[in-house]
Amino acid sequence: MITWKNLNELASFEKVKECEKVCLKEVMAGESGAERVRKYCVPMAEGLAYNYAAKAVDDKIIDALTELAEEAQLGAKYEALYNGEVINTGEKRLVLHQLTRGQLGNAVVADGVDKRAFYVEQQEKIAAFAEKVHSGEIANEKGEKFTQAVQIGIGGSDLGPRAMYIALENWAKVTGHFKMEAKFISNVDPDDAAGVLNGVDAAHAVFILVSKSGTTLETLTNESFVKDALTKAGLDPSKHMIAVTSETSPLAKSADYLAAFFMDDYIGGRYSSTSAVGGAVLSLAFGPDVFAQFLEGAAAADATAKEPDVRKNPSMLDALIGVYERNVLGYPSTAVLPYSQALARFPAHLQQLDMESNGKSVNRFGEPVDYATGPVIFGEPGTNGQHSFYQLLHQGTNIVPLQFVGFKKSQLGTDVVIQGSTSQQKLGANVAAQIVAFACGKDDEDRNKYFDGGRPSSIIIGDQLTPKTLGALLAHFENKVMFQGFVWNVNSFDQEGVQLGKVLAKRVLAHETDGALAVYSELLGI
Amino acid sequence: MITWKNLNELASFEKVKECEKVCLKEVMAGESGAERVRKYCVPMAEGLAYNYAAKAVDDKIIDALTELAEEAQLGAKYEALYNGEVINTGEKRLVLHQLTRGQLGNAVVADGVDKRAFYVEQQEKIAAFAEKVHSGEIANEKGEKFTQAVQIGIGGSDLGPRAMYIALENWAKVTGHFKMEAKFISNVDPDDAAGVLNGVDAAHAVFILVSKSGTTLETLTNESFVKDALTKAGLDPSKHMIAVTSETSPLAKSADYLAAFFMDDYIGGRYSSTSAVGGAVLSLAFGPDVFAQFLEGAAAADATAKEPDVRKNPSMLDALIGVYERNVLGYPSTAVLPYSQALARFPAHLQQLDMESNGKSVNRFGEPVDYATGPVIFGEPGTNGQHSFYQLLHQGTNIVPLQFVGFKKSQLGTDVVIQGSTSQQKLGANVAAQIVAFACGKDDEDRNKYFDGGRPSSIIIGDQLTPKTLGALLAHFENKVMFQGFVWNVNSFDQEGVQLGKVLAKRVLAHETDGALAVYSELLGI
Repeated sequence: MITWKNLNELASFEKVKECEKVCLKEVMAGESGAERVRKYCVPMAEGLAYNYAAKAVDDKIIDALTELAEEAQLGAKYEALYNGEVINTGEKRLVLHQLTRGQLGNAVVADGVDKRAFYVEQQEKIAAFAEKVHSGEIANEKGEKFTQAVQIGIGGSDLGPRAMYIALENWAKVTGHFKMEAKFISNVDPDDAAGVLNGVDAAHAVFILVSKSGTTLETLTNESFVKDALTKAGLDPSKHMIAVTSETSPLAKSADYLAAFFMDDYIGGRYSSTSAVGGAVLSLAFGPDVFAQFLEGAAAADATAKEPDVRKNPSMLDALIGVYERNVLGYPSTAVLPYSQALARFPAHLQQLDMESNGKSVNRFGEPVDYATGPVIFGEPGTNGQHSFYQLLHQGTNIVPLQFVGFKKSQLGTDVVIQGSTSQQKLGANVAAQIVAFACGKDDEDRNKYFDGGRPSSIIIGDQLTPKTLGALLAHFENKVMFQGFVWNVNSFDQEGVQLGKVLAKRVLAHETDGALAVYSELLGI
Repeated sequence: MITWKNLNELASFEKVKECEKVCLKEVMAGESGAERVRKYCVPMAEGLAYNYAAKAVDDKIIDALTELAEEAQLGAKYEALYNGEVINTGEKRLVLHQLTRGQLGNAVVADGVDKRAFYVEQQEKIAAFAEKVHSGEIANEKGEKFTQAVQIGIGGSDLGPRAMYIALENWAKVTGHFKMEAKFISNVDPDDAAGVLNGVDAAHAVFILVSKSGTTLETLTNESFVKDALTKAGLDPSKHMIAVTSETSPLAKSADYLAAFFMDDYIGGRYSSTSAVGGAVLSLAFGPDVFAQFLEGAAAADATAKEPDVRKNPSMLDALIGVYERNVLGYPSTAVLPYSQALARFPAHLQQLDMESNGKSVNRFGEPVDYATGPVIFGEPGTNGQHSFYQLLHQGTNIVPLQFVGFKKSQLGTDVVIQGSTSQQKLGANVAAQIVAFACGKDDEDRNKYFDGGRPSSIIIGDQLTPKTLGALLAHFENKVMFQGFVWNVNSFDQEGVQLGKVLAKRVLAHETDGALAVYSELLGI
């Protein structure tokens, strides 16, 4: 029997708060530190590992967090979710993104269909379409092959798929999987569409229009923008466009598109990279097999998240440590720092995933909560960030918990030895050094060169960034965010906070404004 | 006579704290809101305007902040800086980036030369070089024109120049100023250099090696990486590379480069976009005239920052309101949200500029301060952010102050009318709507659809993003950060917090590790 309680109604949360705090600087020093790095390490899916040695926790705190996980019924709630209960209560919807990559529990039937079968069917339809595009069976008006894919979408239809594309582009080139370049149009700013189109060979481009509802302002506007450009270039837009949408959307059965692929209301935009939303562009760019491997990695991470022992469940553990940092230690933000240029836009995706899911002030019953929920998430790849905002992370007046990601091997394998080490070794040396610098600090009589230490971090380490490890990494964070939402008792799957702005923007465009809004509109020349 | 005092030693700061707080929701409603939007608006350089109507301030608070500005001697300290005093006390250096774009006060002589003349000379040398490249007088081994520029640099040698290049690329294309494409290599991750080189026509590329000291690990490593690739392609690296460095660096007089252009120790990396660091790549990409216009815009903003009346000095006012939000209202982060796709990487530049400058825990004398200094800075362009992290900004449990930027006209001028409005109008309508939504909120019986309001923002509004307005925007933020550093009494021009990580990374590469560092190195396969 599942009960949904606020965090501060849980007896175990009081215990967590009462645990003696850990002095990170002390425990990470010397042999004790070495022991922690060996011990506080959990295997993840696809050979990844979650290492939390440099977090300000110890066995007693993890024990208390384990009790919290039990009292908050995290495992049972995940089970309810993947078995098809209405977890998105605000919108009265099931939450089924895990089902796009595997069957974790019972068959889930909704709208009269087996949803796993439905998602597999869409994936197969996309695979067949992509193969026909690659072979030239589906081609442009002149029978010439398509050579570019351009995704038109915003939010979850942009950030996740774009981050995944960037993550695998170079890997695909070096492993022979690269089929076609992908580009992305998202912003309603006309300079976005116009700028991207300047670099597109429209006659050989297939455009992927992505909107679940088929009503997203930015996406429909950009669709018209693109159609306009295609028509002006003497091309037939309907021969250059496919749609990814829900079956009930106005786009679903339109003759305006070469093909339509479906997702549904049970997959939130920010959780849709493993659905047709990511599937179409990634299958076109890298082939359906690569997309299938990506799903396999995500499925493996979803399975790991079922593990009842918190110490063996990396996403649950990561979630609980995050709650400890947010609600006991009081840290308001978290930085995501991948030591991998291929993950350059992964932090931007996690920023949406996390902040849009858990940036809420009411619980799942619509009652205000009186504790902190989702933190601010930001980040850039290392070592770039080291030469930018790390100054504040090391010596600023606030502590920012850090989430590192690192790999042993590069994707492209091209490297040089300078001063006795490869670039990849330098990259790894830097992330190892940063973790220890943040945790242990450094004494110095010159206070300007003094480092407090005590700045907590975790690291996810993998062998190499591949479709499988990328899928596992993505699903790890999705599941972390889900578990945190359960602990905070918020609905992580709606986003009512985006509505008011839409309503007011429409009012501006209809010139139905007064007060401040009218003057701002005037100043902006509308 | 200038005295450097901590913020909490200033009597006026007590007054600021005692001011009655403003209820933003109330004052921004109805006709009072309209009046504020008209009144709380300061002209900036180049036709920009800083509007702070939606900040939680009023005349009394601005009066108190004006007293604070006077007691903290902000104007006098700026004057001391541009007249060549040793403001960067930790490193015992002058701070002269403003001098790269204009002469604000007395002649500044250092190292026996007039520094303004020195910077102008470098700019002229770069202009002459760029023109010879564009005309083909300087060409590759075969006498063919260079068609691409590739900047190799990290931190300030990357983020600023890259953000400026992206900001002007489309503008240059549509106005006929586009000379050659630029690309950037920054990360020590070998996949960065290898990935960028895959998209470069090396035989026709000029590489710009940027390192003030000539010793930056990432940059020297990437230089070797590129030289290796050039040599393997049968090209002579010395015919494809220029250096931007200090005159005393090992790179300055090397025969390895076609030419060398100089900056000096008086220009911090994050303040170097208007020096040769930004000058070389921007002059090559868009021509020296465009770079000169960019400098002109920055110079105009620098002049505005001299204005003694706080209410007419946008960067000082912006700085003071930021201090009020940080030290009185207690907000730990700030989001930068440009409604302009061309400014996509401007937030990443400001993240470095702000967090590296003011993320400090000691004052300029090396004594710990007991108040908050620089906030966490993050951001993405709108409307993209609206479909991502804005959920938390609207309904999260923490308030995040917001800094919007918007323009009346797009850069490319290509647009479509959908549902009675252009894309540019939709973009403007959205930012206007967001400001009001954040400030005023919305009542709703359904608490899930309820918006608290009271979330403060400012907006900088311009006619169009051009080289001049971009220069003015950049300098506005540089000067804002400088004024905040003066208020917090920190040295905004050093970055000792980046040193410890470098030392430890070297130790890892030399295999001189023990404890936690040794185990992390092992896990990362080093």
